[in-house]
Amino acid sequence: MKSALQAYVDAMNRGDVAGLLALFAPDATIEDPVGTPARGGAELAGWFWASVAVGASLRIAAPSRGSWANEAALIFEVEYNADGRRLRVHTLDVCTFDTDGRITQMRAFWGPEDVEDIGPAHFV
Amino acid sequence: MKSALQAYVDAMNRGDVAGLLALFAPDATIEDPVGTPARGGAELAGWFWASVAVGASLRIAAPSRGSWANEAALIFEVEYNADGRRLRVHTLDVCTFDTDGRITQMRAFWGPEDVEDIGPAHFV
Repeated sequence: MKSALQAYVDAMNRGDVAGLLALFAPDATIEDPVGTPARGGAELAGWFWASVAVGASLRIAAPSRGSWANEAALIFEVEYNADGRRLRVHTLDVCTFDTDGRITQMRAFWGPEDVEDIGPAHFV
Repeated sequence: MKSALQAYVDAMNRGDVAGLLALFAPDATIEDPVGTPARGGAELAGWFWASVAVGASLRIAAPSRGSWANEAALIFEVEYNADGRRLRVHTLDVCTFDTDGRITQMRAFWGPEDVEDIGPAHFV
């Protein structure tokens, strides 16, 4: 699970949408942030393309946590462009995995107060 | 939610079982680690007493994460005594809260590979 989480960070950082999709089961859902409707199916590719388009850059903030079940957590910060600004979000993803090691559910924990404005937008 | 999580760390670090219990709803459950049976009711006090008895010491490893719902996450390391050794566990608690701000569910993410032996047990 932890190697899949590391692969998720690496694929996002190189803008590799196909690589991102390969980490997810076909029926996977992403709830980002927790408390909003989950995306699934064709929405996932769109969400990854949009993340790449806004220059999403991930940095691991603490070692990933496992469990005694099929769940693990990735602790990170993500920076991206929004409305001409560069934002940094302190977040974490709780993920559930299938028996093939693919992500079936990803839930992102961040709230309005976890978002920092760190300056002007970057060129993507 | 974040202030309750900070209060949890502080109460555990001063060995304040009553203070810990006051942060939880009466029907709260703790699943620690994820993948094991959840404790509830009278088991919670017993679990907190046992944590104090083994010299549990918590250190926040990254800022707590909120959400757009009634869930938040505490990212920390806990050290405690076990079999004459001092262990450090890299963990995080995903918590759900009721409308009074009390914790109703706590799920601790850590697996066997998130445990470090850091030396002999401490005097408690």
